[in-house]
Amino acid sequence: MSGPLTGIRVLDLTTIVSGPLATMILADQGADVIKIEPPQGEQLRRMGISHNGMTTSFLSANRSKRSLSVDLKSAAGLEIMRKLVATADVLVQNFRPGTIERMGLGEAEVRALRPDIVFVSISGFGERGPYADRRVYDPVIQALSGLADIQADRDTGRPRMVRTIIPDKTTAVTAAQAITAALFARERSGEGQHVRLAMLDTMVAYLWPEGMSALSYVGHEADPARGQMGLDLVYETQDHYITAGAVSDAEWAGMCRALERPDLLEDERFRTSEARSRHVPERRAVTSEEIARWPSAELLRRFAAEGVPCAPVLTRVELLDNEQVRANEILEVHDDPRLGRVRQPRPAARFDRTPAAIQRMAPFLGADNAAILGELGYSRAEIAVFAREGVLGGEGA
Amino acid sequence: MSGPLTGIRVLDLTTIVSGPLATMILADQGADVIKIEPPQGEQLRRMGISHNGMTTSFLSANRSKRSLSVDLKSAAGLEIMRKLVATADVLVQNFRPGTIERMGLGEAEVRALRPDIVFVSISGFGERGPYADRRVYDPVIQALSGLADIQADRDTGRPRMVRTIIPDKTTAVTAAQAITAALFARERSGEGQHVRLAMLDTMVAYLWPEGMSALSYVGHEADPARGQMGLDLVYETQDHYITAGAVSDAEWAGMCRALERPDLLEDERFRTSEARSRHVPERRAVTSEEIARWPSAELLRRFAAEGVPCAPVLTRVELLDNEQVRANEILEVHDDPRLGRVRQPRPAARFDRTPAAIQRMAPFLGADNAAILGELGYSRAEIAVFAREGVLGGEGA
Repeated sequence: MSGPLTGIRVLDLTTIVSGPLATMILADQGADVIKIEPPQGEQLRRMGISHNGMTTSFLSANRSKRSLSVDLKSAAGLEIMRKLVATADVLVQNFRPGTIERMGLGEAEVRALRPDIVFVSISGFGERGPYADRRVYDPVIQALSGLADIQADRDTGRPRMVRTIIPDKTTAVTAAQAITAALFARERSGEGQHVRLAMLDTMVAYLWPEGMSALSYVGHEADPARGQMGLDLVYETQDHYITAGAVSDAEWAGMCRALERPDLLEDERFRTSEARSRHVPERRAVTSEEIARWPSAELLRRFAAEGVPCAPVLTRVELLDNEQVRANEILEVHDDPRLGRVRQPRPAARFDRTPAAIQRMAPFLGADNAAILGELGYSRAEIAVFAREGVLGGEGA
Repeated sequence: MSGPLTGIRVLDLTTIVSGPLATMILADQGADVIKIEPPQGEQLRRMGISHNGMTTSFLSANRSKRSLSVDLKSAAGLEIMRKLVATADVLVQNFRPGTIERMGLGEAEVRALRPDIVFVSISGFGERGPYADRRVYDPVIQALSGLADIQADRDTGRPRMVRTIIPDKTTAVTAAQAITAALFARERSGEGQHVRLAMLDTMVAYLWPEGMSALSYVGHEADPARGQMGLDLVYETQDHYITAGAVSDAEWAGMCRALERPDLLEDERFRTSEARSRHVPERRAVTSEEIARWPSAELLRRFAAEGVPCAPVLTRVELLDNEQVRANEILEVHDDPRLGRVRQPRPAARFDRTPAAIQRMAPFLGADNAAILGELGYSRAEIAVFAREGVLGGEGA
């Protein structure tokens, strides 16, 4: 079975997260993604928890790809890369501005070898402006994009980071969409193009709806916090944390019945949606107190029966065995000859005719050197010389 | 100028956020997205801050679209919809499972009218399993997907929500990518398909890299918190909040020089990267104390000069005038005859041959009724009858 992007070849020169995750989405959808790394491998191979020679971070951002480890600073390595470019539909890079040109692989050189290629540049801050040449870390974009302001402590006003790399990951999904759109356009026009994407731009566009949209009307700006999620709807039961929310009259009535407090339906402070929104702290106090009297499983059953949106707050370990996560077959376990049994989430979107799928685990460094060079017409003898001379790295060396 | 998806027609039957944002991405990229709403309009038209008859929330999730307001429960309304389906490339819906079939617009009916359509179903929990029929709110997915666990308070362990609707928005971007991939596949095969996407599945796949990847090796699971962003890197200066991080030896040395504390370079607790990671609280304490002595602007200049990744933590209002946000031309102001001057972020990805662009502001309800029905071959007289009889709503009525 093949995915929607079968037949597309992507050269992936990216590192860390935003680029690798973007191309992994394409790889799961059937594209032949060749991850190109220097002989020492990229940084993510050395970050995080390692098992049987593969870090969990590299594994989870590079599955379904093939690996070519080649020294692009050597003349022979650059020549291999140029031959590969001629066979590619997409090239993705996330070096700092100017670097790819110095490597001899700028858009002009690449397009001369493959005129209709989709050339993709992912950056932290864009190619101009005071931050353009700076190093980027995810928290820097959280700080600049308003995300740390959105997460600010309600009481003290102190900004806070979100403790997962939202800017890196959102840039990845946004880049995958843009690359796919450029491939679609090429299919109709025959022409490739240059797609540029900055993490900062991505995050402002992503956060604006709801998070910043109160700033839309020039001269009539409102406090953006008014558009945000009102409460931190986490409640503690006898034995666990849950979330539950009652917005409509019907949901509020259901919540009162489930909590065996029908008297609250008569409480003037909570009778209408408008009254409830004027008495948020009081309502929060009374619901917290009532919820704390119940065991989670029983209360969640009662809420669900009354049509009150609710769920347990799962830890990541609990999530592995959650009944809905299982019903959706979100987590797959793959047997890999070297890595053992590996758990990964399947691609989220299900395509009924061209299913996306985890094609294979992330490759060890240089695992596909010989196969890829063979496809380019190099002989076994030539490949052996490259390996000996350090033009190829990792397992191909 | 036209975007990469020019020539594609999308029928958008979605409400609130995950669906509308997905199709807005396609609309900015040139697709003709027709937002189809009942005569009373969708809920988002009544949520949030309203100005000149348009809420900021609807505005920011529905720009670049056209609006058709039609009563699909009437025979004439359904017939209009069926004619429209025959002209469409994509239909997107996010009703609860089973609803679209009861409306007479299930995949079988739609495919009979347009055999190669891409039919897209976005749901909260998927189509099977114990949660399938429940109402979904963003916090429910935050609770189930591990996001509230990732954001848990370090000291108390109490889970916390992220205060922006990450599941809704990430599902939107993921859906836009999947739809585009299905359009690409159709271009090559001539065949449409059904694409299904659940918010829960999307969030597990999105959070896994880095947020959950420590659970990848079955039988060798590690604490997933080990993969997370280590510290909340927000510091208070004399006059503002900033972020700054020193990971490598060079960055740490730069930070010590910038803070005029070269003596820290000799401190045994911080001499190597390994030592620094064993003394995180001590390092955090000393850097916090030193950073607090400086005014922000001066310290950020010093950090930047020393190659230390850093940025001010901007409020959303400050962001509007930030020099890098301006250099990237992220925010555009459009003059709209009815709404006045409207600020919106441009689409993040820049395509050099087929630029994406904000095509127009979000439409008032039914604003394009007459134009769309005219394209389908209805006469002015027929349209007037439909309006009078309540088959059409909003401005077309």
